[in-house]
Parts: sequence; structure tokens; C-alpha cells
Amino acid sequence: MNQQYMGKTLRLLYPQWQGGYDESEFPGQIYPLGARLLAWLAPASEAPLVEVPVEKWAGGNAPKEGGVFYRQEILRQMRAARSIIDAHTPERIITFGGDCLISQAPFAYLNERYGGKMGVLWIDAHPDVTTPDDFDHAHAMVLGNLLGRGEPLMAAEVRLPLKPEQVALVGVNNVLPHEQNTIDRLGLTVMPGRDVMHDSTVVTAWMRERELECVAVHLDLDVLDPSLFRSLLFANPAVEKHIEAERGKNRIQEIGRLLADVAAQAHVVGMSFAEHMPWDALNLQKMLSALPFMR
Amino acid sequence: MNQQYMGKTLRLLYPQWQGGYDESEFPGQIYPLGARLLAWLAPASEAPLVEVPVEKWAGGNAPKEGGVFYRQEILRQMRAARSIIDAHTPERIITFGGDCLISQAPFAYLNERYGGKMGVLWIDAHPDVTTPDDFDHAHAMVLGNLLGRGEPLMAAEVRLPLKPEQVALVGVNNVLPHEQNTIDRLGLTVMPGRDVMHDSTVVTAWMRERELECVAVHLDLDVLDPSLFRSLLFANPAVEKHIEAERGKNRIQEIGRLLADVAAQAHVVGMSFAEHMPWDALNLQKMLSALPFMR
Repeated sequence: MNQQYMGKTLRLLYPQWQGGYDESEFPGQIYPLGARLLAWLAPASEAPLVEVPVEKWAGGNAPKEGGVFYRQEILRQMRAARSIIDAHTPERIITFGGDCLISQAPFAYLNERYGGKMGVLWIDAHPDVTTPDDFDHAHAMVLGNLLGRGEPLMAAEVRLPLKPEQVALVGVNNVLPHEQNTIDRLGLTVMPGRDVMHDSTVVTAWMRERELECVAVHLDLDVLDPSLFRSLLFANPAVEKHIEAERGKNRIQEIGRLLADVAAQAHVVGMSFAEHMPWDALNLQKMLSALPFMR
Repeated sequence: MNQQYMGKTLRLLYPQWQGGYDESEFPGQIYPLGARLLAWLAPASEAPLVEVPVEKWAGGNAPKEGGVFYRQEILRQMRAARSIIDAHTPERIITFGGDCLISQAPFAYLNERYGGKMGVLWIDAHPDVTTPDDFDHAHAMVLGNLLGRGEPLMAAEVRLPLKPEQVALVGVNNVLPHEQNTIDRLGLTVMPGRDVMHDSTVVTAWMRERELECVAVHLDLDVLDPSLFRSLLFANPAVEKHIEAERGKNRIQEIGRLLADVAAQAHVVGMSFAEHMPWDALNLQKMLSALPFMR
């Protein structure tokens, strides 16, 4: 066992909602609850759990800057997350999000720490490589930012960008034309969800070819089939008709097996959980909070 | 404000699963998680939160005694719950369950305390008045027990049985023939789910007619439509084909409004939440616990 991977773990509670800002609900409720619930469900550990300060929704219109919602606040949070990480200098970071952007500061730090030799598994129904030219929600730009593209000011926070050959997109089935252009131009590896349904060999073979000693794993829970795992955007019971967008096809047991197989082959130095939206829990919490006799 | 209702509240964490024992899953996992998650979601309070000790699943076949599963263990838990309540002598009991039986000890205590003058709102898709002659899962017998029927040994734990005129069943739409016989014989009031969808007047009028100063409310979450609130038995994503049984038709917002309207008219001295089955949370917890790097 390599000594450089035997050190400290930091757990980050990162309740960011601004990158996935949604006008159709009360903004800023579901993402923070999802982050806290993930941290509550995680097994006990000696690792410190540190919360990244995130502004609550203040009402009114969402600010749009440079084509994306809440750019300044998102940048402030990224820098706060980095300051917390620098204070701890961990070997491993577990991040409970929050929207997909919660992986940027941890993965940027880890790529520096491991000298650009870290693999990145981006498990997601979407490739997260859009830019403000095509979309206004920054959570869809985070992998682009880490690759030195995406949203320019956010990308500028990444001191050592990932190289495309470090990255595998897992669970991406269909992409939009502008996403395909970026994937093709960068030569990103894409593994559709069906390739990891029955076993993990496409991923572990990819890791072995690259002789990866360590990996950071981003798990956007929207890679899961929303008819079986309902704590997702597209399973919000308050929405009658969801927008057309790609939905995940995998089962949580398949993803659990994949993560365990990856961990058996390399050091998992980063692990992020993103886009957890526990609607039932939020609705229960609202009901309980409104009852005077519960106070 | 009547002074007798201004006293102490006790919160009970009652992770009982034996009354709703299900061979088709790993027994004893989902009910305790549901109870703990409810307690976690509840607003902060100065009320003490006391856990009723509940045996974990020990493997092997479930014991069946007198026609019901786990009768002895359920009786032991009822007595433990009563001992905890007697130690605190609360004016109000909030109970986080657990299967439906978790209401028996609190409601029996409260009916004694308030001299048989308490109303009981039993909000549930099922009337919970079966007996071991017709079923082997004791959670379907709890209201029967409180009325002096149901399962004989459990009913014997109730010192002052409820009178049928104290009780309204809310959200019960269709019942089995043996349940209908009991409802008719006792003359229980039944309000179908559609009667409380738009407003609460059928319930508040029923309370006013009886001049009820205080009520205990049992909320079996299965009164909710499982296509909109998925943390329920009939929304278990691991089950391909669910058994034929009555499903709830109400929305959580309707039930929240009903509870608030009830609380505006009478003192809610008992409030139980039962049959909460957070499948997504359980599946996430299992995945997280299986990952070596999360330890």
C-alpha cells in the first residue's frame, strides 16, 4: 500500500443549490436537505465533516452574470471550499452535495496533489461540458471547468486542469449536439449506462490501461433510473410534466457494485455525491414544521 | 387555554418492525430507518426524545404465536413503551414509528390521562381492526386492540379501551368484508379520502359535535398516494409486482392542512407517524456502508 494514500480524509458538506437553480420550486430547499441527508446516512467515520458556507435564497429574481445564474456566489463558494480543503490538506475528500459543481474545488485540489496522475470517473446521465453559450445553469459546466473550458471565470479557478485522457464519462447515453462537439473535440471517453449494468470491466479495464493508482469519482445520482430511485429532479411529485432531458438508466445496486470494484483496484481519493433531491423527506419536513404542536 | 394541556411533551422514537414483518425484504431495516429519519426531520424541540428498545432481526424464521408474528416481542415493546411514558407522565406524546402498533401504548396512556374524553383521528388507508382469525400481521390490529378487540393479549394491555364514538377513521376508502363487519358492529365513523381532499370540515365538524377538547392523531403514511409519496410499502422499487391491497389516495399537502386545521380547533395530545419506508435513503445507506473508503 502506497503511503501517500494512507492519510487523512476530509468530509465536505456542500449544500450548494445555485448551480442547479430552479425557478419552478422554492429555490434552495431541496439541495441543502439532500446534502445533509447524505451526510446523515453515511457510515460513522473519524474524518471531520466541514460545511461549506452557502447563502440561502433571498427571494426575488436570480442574478444572471456572464450568462449563468449566481456566478459570483458560486465563485465565492468554490473559494471557500478550497480554503477549507487547504486548511486540512487531506489525502481524500468525500463531498456531500449539492449540485454537480460541488466536485470542482475538491477535484481541482486532488489533481494538483496527485500531480495530474489521478483518473476521474464522472458517473452521470449528462456530460457536464456545456458553456454559457448554450445554457445558463452552471452545474452543467463543471467537468468543462475542470478541463479548462466551461465557464471562463470558474475554469480560471482550476490551477492544474484535467487532461481529457484522465477522464471517463460513465452512464452517459445520449447527449445534445453541442455536448457531442465538445466530447469529440476533446476526445473524451464515454461509456453508456448499459456497459456497466452487468459488470464493471469496461471501467476497470480503462483504469488498468492507464495504470491509475488513484481516482476521483463524481456520482451524479441522476445516472439512476428515476422510476426506481425517486430522489431526483425528474421524480419531483409537484411537477406534472417534466422538461425533456436525458434521464438515467441505471440501478443503484449497479452503481454500488461499480464503486466497490473501482475501490478494489485503485485508491479512491475523491468521492462526490451530487444532485440528491429527497422529495418525500422535504415534504415531510414541511408538514412537520407547520404543526404548532411539534415545536 | 386549559392548563391541563400546557405541560410536557414526550417524543418517542419507536422503531418497531415486527408488527409489519415482511419476508420479502431483509426484515427490520426499513422501519427503523423510517422512524429515525422522521425524528431527524422534525423541528427542534425541548421535548426529550426517548427510544423504545426494539430487538433487531436475528435471522431464521419469524415466530408466530396465537396466529400473529412476533407476539411476545411486540407485547414486550408495548410494556417498555408504557414504562417510558409512565416515567415521564407527559401531557402530549409525539411518536415516530415504526409500524402502526406504535400508537397503542401512547394512545392507551392518553385515554386514561384524559378520562376517556379524548377524540382519536385514525388517518390511514386501512381500518386496522383485523384479528388473528383473518390476518397474521399485528400492525393491522392496533385500533381493534385500543377498542378492546383485535388481538386478545395485546388488547389486554389497554386499561381503558376507547369507545367507538371517540374514533373517526379518515382516508379509508375500501375495506375487506371482515373489516366492514367490525366497522358496522362497532358503528365506527368512516370518512373516505375524498372527503378531506379540499377542506377539513367533515373532520372539524365531527370534533365540534362531540365537543372534543383534545385529540390523538394516528397518521399511517400509507393514506398517501404512493405514486406521489414513494416512501411507502407499495412503492418499494425492489418489488416487481405488489400484492393486491388498498392504496392511499391523498396528497401530503392535504393531510398537512388537515392536521393544522385539527390543531387549530383542539389540543393535539397525541401524534403518531407510522409506516414510513424511505427506500431511496435505505438504498443509499446500503451503498455508502459497503464502500471501504467511507469508513
